[in-house]
Amino acid sequence: MISKAQIKFIHSLKQKKYREIHQCFIAEGSKLVREMAASRFPVRQIFASREWIRENAFSGKIAAEEITSREMERITGLSTPSPALAIVEIPETLPGTEAWKEDIVIVLDGIQDPGNLGTIIRIADWFGIRQLICSVGCVDLYNPKVVQSTMGSITRVNIDYLDLPAFLAPLNGKMPVFGMKLDGDDLYRTNTTTNGLIVIGSEAHGISDQVSAFITQKISIPFFPADRETHAESLNAAVAAGIVCAEFRRTLESVRGRRDEGKSV
Amino acid sequence: MISKAQIKFIHSLKQKKYREIHQCFIAEGSKLVREMAASRFPVRQIFASREWIRENAFSGKIAAEEITSREMERITGLSTPSPALAIVEIPETLPGTEAWKEDIVIVLDGIQDPGNLGTIIRIADWFGIRQLICSVGCVDLYNPKVVQSTMGSITRVNIDYLDLPAFLAPLNGKMPVFGMKLDGDDLYRTNTTTNGLIVIGSEAHGISDQVSAFITQKISIPFFPADRETHAESLNAAVAAGIVCAEFRRTLESVRGRRDEGKSV
Repeated sequence: MISKAQIKFIHSLKQKKYREIHQCFIAEGSKLVREMAASRFPVRQIFASREWIRENAFSGKIAAEEITSREMERITGLSTPSPALAIVEIPETLPGTEAWKEDIVIVLDGIQDPGNLGTIIRIADWFGIRQLICSVGCVDLYNPKVVQSTMGSITRVNIDYLDLPAFLAPLNGKMPVFGMKLDGDDLYRTNTTTNGLIVIGSEAHGISDQVSAFITQKISIPFFPADRETHAESLNAAVAAGIVCAEFRRTLESVRGRRDEGKSV
Repeated sequence: MISKAQIKFIHSLKQKKYREIHQCFIAEGSKLVREMAASRFPVRQIFASREWIRENAFSGKIAAEEITSREMERITGLSTPSPALAIVEIPETLPGTEAWKEDIVIVLDGIQDPGNLGTIIRIADWFGIRQLICSVGCVDLYNPKVVQSTMGSITRVNIDYLDLPAFLAPLNGKMPVFGMKLDGDDLYRTNTTTNGLIVIGSEAHGISDQVSAFITQKISIPFFPADRETHAESLNAAVAAGIVCAEFRRTLESVRGRRDEGKSV
């Protein structure tokens, strides 16, 4: 059973304002709810089908309320309702360490599309990039569509929202700052590094001028063939992020000599 | 002015059934409508703001109906209405050539997400891949969300819907068939080729068994670091497509010796 007050509460969490007031967000889907329950994120309550609760024994640790599929339809934000929905508390920010300075960090400037942000968090998780910095103008991390499209990676990547110029200023000259720009140098002619910031702007507006001022190396993904006149104007921001992260990791592995021996070129 | 019948007609085109009956689809957005008008796709009618019509002189060639922003709100499928919407005729399939056999072809098996299909078409366009084959189970190409997310690339990539086993059977032994699989060989240890099919399955179901039977080389994008236990289970299908296409083109350029000279590794 679910009460009217609970339904109202869950719906309110679709808005950032109420997520901030209640310090909670929604995670939906069988696998995502399981991952949340196993993570450092405090799960306050789960609403799920009888079968799901039986198969996933969190009982005792996390309050699980059995609901019907009709009740789930009233609270879900998905077009195809899943068997489980969790109310999760926004975790405290982890105490800062300087470890990220030794590694690649993704910096997002004004990414508005929730699917893109979620997909980039998933990319970071795949490539072992532990730190992601969002400009304050990026879509909210706890927007249900962002949470959904991370596919659980939100529990494994550290994400901070910062004023980017204030964050970048003290790093000036201390870390390479790569910026994805359409007029940047060919990614495959760029000397990638083992640490550094990779700045990615929104598809609509690119990287802001304020942030661009801190970029030490502009890079772009070459289209093909190089002499072609008409082609897509750009790549999707998440696809571009994926290609760049893959290349930084490939070259790092190549330096380490663990890959490429079997490669023809 | 827009009539009630026109509004009803435009809304009907959100459904595949009516797109097939009328052999028409919708394209929205200032840039997309311009690209459609300049392409081989026959644009039947444009609904747009007075300013947009004034700035884009297709008059004489394409019927453009001036509408108010309130009228646009009644026909748009976008959350933020744009100044222009076009009704476009589904073009005839281009006469088949064998040119694709000399190049990379993307083959999609059961991709259901409209954003993923549109984004993959945009990737193909960026990397100069002219042919894309969809299984009959893929989302319809003329779904408004697919058209939108191609960002115009739909006009530059040839896309066919085919029964994949019937398409693949006669190519057996004649062309390499790469398949993206989580248990595939490391992409960066694979000998990429200048021609071949790259098969990508859906995130939910992967590549079907029927299609898997034709794969000559399973490939995967390595996660990082290689000895890590917990990481994202997979990458988004479009992100994976982008990384693989980028690698095939990078190695091709590398063979041609036009790139990599300046590269440290």
